[in-house]
Amino acid sequence: MGWVAVLMGSNSDWPVMQSTTEILSDFDIQYEVRVTSAHRNPAQTADYVRSAESRGCQIFICAAGLAAHLAGAVAANTTKPVIGVPMDGGPMSGFDALLSTVQMPGGIPVATLAIGKAGAKNAGHLAAQILALSDDDLQQQLKKDRERSVKRVREQNASIQNE
Amino acid sequence: MGWVAVLMGSNSDWPVMQSTTEILSDFDIQYEVRVTSAHRNPAQTADYVRSAESRGCQIFICAAGLAAHLAGAVAANTTKPVIGVPMDGGPMSGFDALLSTVQMPGGIPVATLAIGKAGAKNAGHLAAQILALSDDDLQQQLKKDRERSVKRVREQNASIQNE
Amino acid sequence: MGWVAVLMGSNSDWPVMQSTTEILSDFDIQYEVRVTSAHRNPAQTADYVRSAESRGCQIFICAAGLAAHLAGAVAANTTKPVIGVPMDGGPMSGFDALLSTVQMPGGIPVATLAIGKAGAKNAGHLAAQILALSDDDLQQQLKKDRERSVKRVREQNASIQNE
Amino acid sequence: MGWVAVLMGSNSDWPVMQSTTEILSDFDIQYEVRVTSAHRNPAQTADYVRSAESRGCQIFICAAGLAAHLAGAVAANTTKPVIGVPMDGGPMSGFDALLSTVQMPGGIPVATLAIGKAGAKNAGHLAAQILALSDDDLQQQLKKDRERSVKRVREQNASIQNE
Amino acid sequence: MGWVAVLMGSNSDWPVMQSTTEILSDFDIQYEVRVTSAHRNPAQTADYVRSAESRGCQIFICAAGLAAHLAGAVAANTTKPVIGVPMDGGPMSGFDALLSTVQMPGGIPVATLAIGKAGAKNAGHLAAQILALSDDDLQQQLKKDRERSVKRVREQNASIQNE
Amino acid sequence: MGWVAVLMGSNSDWPVMQSTTEILSDFDIQYEVRVTSAHRNPAQTADYVRSAESRGCQIFICAAGLAAHLAGAVAANTTKPVIGVPMDGGPMSGFDALLSTVQMPGGIPVATLAIGKAGAKNAGHLAAQILALSDDDLQQQLKKDRERSVKRVREQNASIQNE
Amino acid sequence: MGWVAVLMGSNSDWPVMQSTTEILSDFDIQYEVRVTSAHRNPAQTADYVRSAESRGCQIFICAAGLAAHLAGAVAANTTKPVIGVPMDGGPMSGFDALLSTVQMPGGIPVATLAIGKAGAKNAGHLAAQILALSDDDLQQQLKKDRERSVKRVREQNASIQNE
Amino acid sequence: MGWVAVLMGSNSDWPVMQSTTEILSDFDIQYEVRVTSAHRNPAQTADYVRSAESRGCQIFICAAGLAAHLAGAVAANTTKPVIGVPMDGGPMSGFDALLSTVQMPGGIPVATLAIGKAGAKNAGHLAAQILALSDDDLQQQLKKDRERSVKRVREQNASIQNE
Repeated sequence: MGWVAVLMGSNSDWPVMQSTTEILSDFDIQYEVRVTSAHRNPAQTADYVRSAESRGCQIFICAAGLAAHLAGAVAANTTKPVIGVPMDGGPMSGFDALLSTVQMPGGIPVATLAIGKAGAKNAGHLAAQILALSDDDLQQQLKKDRERSVKRVREQNASIQNE
Repeated sequence: MGWVAVLMGSNSDWPVMQSTTEILSDFDIQYEVRVTSAHRNPAQTADYVRSAESRGCQIFICAAGLAAHLAGAVAANTTKPVIGVPMDGGPMSGFDALLSTVQMPGGIPVATLAIGKAGAKNAGHLAAQILALSDDDLQQQLKKDRERSVKRVREQNASIQNE
Repeated sequence: MGWVAVLMGSNSDWPVMQSTTEILSDFDIQYEVRVTSAHRNPAQTADYVRSAESRGCQIFICAAGLAAHLAGAVAANTTKPVIGVPMDGGPMSGFDALLSTVQMPGGIPVATLAIGKAGAKNAGHLAAQILALSDDDLQQQLKKDRERSVKRVREQNASIQNE
Repeated sequence: MGWVAVLMGSNSDWPVMQSTTEILSDFDIQYEVRVTSAHRNPAQTADYVRSAESRGCQIFICAAGLAAHLAGAVAANTTKPVIGVPMDGGPMSGFDALLSTVQMPGGIPVATLAIGKAGAKNAGHLAAQILALSDDDLQQQLKKDRERSVKRVREQNASIQNE
Repeated sequence: MGWVAVLMGSNSDWPVMQSTTEILSDFDIQYEVRVTSAHRNPAQTADYVRSAESRGCQIFICAAGLAAHLAGAVAANTTKPVIGVPMDGGPMSGFDALLSTVQMPGGIPVATLAIGKAGAKNAGHLAAQILALSDDDLQQQLKKDRERSVKRVREQNASIQNE
Repeated sequence: MGWVAVLMGSNSDWPVMQSTTEILSDFDIQYEVRVTSAHRNPAQTADYVRSAESRGCQIFICAAGLAAHLAGAVAANTTKPVIGVPMDGGPMSGFDALLSTVQMPGGIPVATLAIGKAGAKNAGHLAAQILALSDDDLQQQLKKDRERSVKRVREQNASIQNE
Repeated sequence: MGWVAVLMGSNSDWPVMQSTTEILSDFDIQYEVRVTSAHRNPAQTADYVRSAESRGCQIFICAAGLAAHLAGAVAANTTKPVIGVPMDGGPMSGFDALLSTVQMPGGIPVATLAIGKAGAKNAGHLAAQILALSDDDLQQQLKKDRERSVKRVREQNASIQNE
Repeated sequence: MGWVAVLMGSNSDWPVMQSTTEILSDFDIQYEVRVTSAHRNPAQTADYVRSAESRGCQIFICAAGLAAHLAGAVAANTTKPVIGVPMDGGPMSGFDALLSTVQMPGGIPVATLAIGKAGAKNAGHLAAQILALSDDDLQQQLKKDRERSVKRVREQNASIQNE
């Protein structure tokens, strides 16, 4: 099994994106975290993508806010799957980041998830689902995670019944 | 290499979703097309997902419009990657479908692409990228496709220079 | 008179949805509260709907946020009236939940109310209005509630006049 | 079984709202159609609501566009269930009508459906679901309608398989 | 010179609408304040409008939030000018109230102002401008107010220059 | 009775704004029409406003699209009431024009009406309502217009009953 | 005086962007037109920017639609002024392109203009204004252009007066 | 090298716009700050623009909120480049200001930047980029600033690696 790159445009995205790395850790998926920007250091970003791909990176997870170009800029430099997480900072609460991430033109997809923390968590889950296609153990872990999720709903329900 | 399920909530989505199946065919990826709805035949939809998964389906591509629940309903019944394509019909031009598809809660990701035809094309590309993680031939095809894409930009540019 | 099911996708919706159960209690309408999710435990949700319907449930009130599929998923499994309340959490303040709930395709209606607390209150009122169609006592209570509402406006007005 | 009032703010709404009356006719539900406006003839609208209620009207279906106040104005004058259908005319494609209809304050619910034709159809379905709570024959018809809906999905699917 | 009615759908609008009455007081314009609702006490609202008009009310200022129908409901019952102020409460921050107030159909205008406090202030100013058409003293006061406004800009500018 | 200035930023607005002048003519209100722009000839626009005010203009009606500044620019140069009509051209269908017109800061109100033709009609009606405050004949005409409006609703209703 | 690069992500943008080159021609400003994409040929795009800058390019005008990253990608590779024109194609009518272009993070500005043709024209005008800072002849031409603009308003006004 | 005018509609914009003047100071660019409004003192605003232009002002930076007309009003009175910064105050969080600033009609461009602080910073950067076209020292400073920006990304990245 390869590894996952978790990229973000600014270290202010890190508190949200720790939700991604926690999920990756839960599934024992290896990852690298990098702060790298489509706008501030574009050449290094492109270099990193090519280098990571050659070192076995299988999936790129990219978080950015405002005119969020990071996921698209990464997708332009690799044919590995790219997952985009729109950050919810700024006066438009991430709506700008959502459209900047999801509305990619034909040929260069970015697999876009929900704005903010829900999307950050799901970036970990989606990466796990993709890697599990060729990793039966991981597939089993995903099945167990769903069972735990069902159980959590049952517990939440029970706690309300007890009120 | 497994196969891909291309699901849509109504046959009115088919003209757009043929962009997906054309890309899948270009990459020699096997697929099944099904009209199945989260709302009109939910039990059959859930049955199909489980059956397809057991028959080797690796990726589910789901197209729906308006309150587009199909991708989410499929994702709730599988741990395989689910790709959502918001359809652009209706008075809100697919904006409702985009939010209904992308804003999934933590734990159940839907890899969402652009509204309408651009997203339908990219569903084929993203599926190919995911399957290529364990298929070197397909990875090579993706690289060649990018080279053709670069060439097409060059041709478009040349045609404008000739004016 | 039958009873009403009050369903929510997460126990974080409970503080808002207590506005619903308070109104139902005020009108002496029986209800069950359940945390059950369209995405996390879809099979149990469908089972619950069928079971509740067979046990005399007349109306389903469903609260969910983000890509709010719960009301639609319930509506897909019953022909009893389904009332949807979009929750206002998340970076889009419930606008995503509103569109995901209200924009249902032809054949599977969800009676959608306002985002958040106003909608939660009105879910109780709408359920009472529906049940009152075959319950004259409840119809009288609704009329009295309106009179109280008129009186409250008068009191609010009086308090401003006194300033 | 009582009857349903189908109200619209202008006769330009009639082509869309015939989708409602067709569904009501399919279910053998009696109805009256009226053009009446919250703004152009408010007193007659209020009078009609009171009169209709006294003549056995059980449900009010209200269609209006732009600043769509009709459903709210009707709801303010009755304790019967009121269903709102936002019309999709005008430069905002019905988005203004949706918000004007659904965002009702606590105490005066309007059961809001999708913008335009999908909502008009669902107004008929929702009215049938409500009336079926005390009409077993109608409940059976609703179950059969769902079966036909499942069959239509199957036929749509078959027609694509045959291509 | 006649007087102005300042109506609001709930006493929770009063803190914002005091900006209106302060401006009216500054211009020595007489006014009545009333809490009255398009939805909770519609008959009294219509009665009040007719009574106020017969008692010399020249302008109605109406504040409401969410599906803000008050200004439209008042406009439907008078041919005096009606000024609408969308309140900024609720999860949509008054955007719903703006569209519900401004998008009135042909024949029943509502003179709509900005959402929240800016609009509340301007309701006072617009009422003064209208009444000043037949009141030269008031017209002079408006001119002086503009001069004060110019002076305030100059003072704000000076305070920044002094930093 | 004074007269009304009907200003528009471009002659492309004229087909819509003829709805305004038709209403003014119906009410025998005198008016001047001018193409004048806040951006292309700002000095002439300010000069026109001052000149018109000195020649007895009582109300300014201003139509503009996109970043619609005309009404605000006129309001900045007069203390007469200014009515703004957002034009519905351009890719945002007049939503940009609506916000640019209505969201005026405190002290400089623009009485804003609906986007496009509905707003253009209502500009004529609102001007008539304002002028009627000191013109009993015009007040009578407004009352008769409302009666005709009620009659038109009745005729629309009758034509549907006859189907 | 240097020259201007007019870049677009696809040759489908060319019909709109000819409005830019016509304005540049009117002002005798030299330009190069290139189809080059932030996503399809990112390395060539970056190379072109660096090469153009070394060959005396003073301003980059960038047109793109959907998740419009071209202007941002160019801005990331130059310290010359970058002008962004959001294209109005696609289901969101250019609103996605506007936010993707304008919401750039601190440090990497894109001078954004209106969606579609108005913005394309203004890209030519803004480039001329910038170059005119060190070119007195061009400054004179800009002044004359404004005079022609004033004259055109006068002619438009005259044509309406003649009706 | 000339100087830059930093204008704002209200002194409440000053805390945000200090981000602009800090950047201008960093680049040793001379500037004047003025509070001046398109609506409250329009004549003085136009006078200032003409005076500033005659005194060597090269670029106007304009900040305003709500129906933000300041940048457009300045652009209408000069052929120097005008930069608009939409302020993020008010219930629409600056979305109204963005559209009011960016959607300028053909012929009168406003170079629009992001809402709020990011835009305020970038106003300083864009002004520096424009002035650097004829100032080699400033061009060198811009290059160095980008290098510092690359370094800051590297430091942000390092701080995360150290966790």
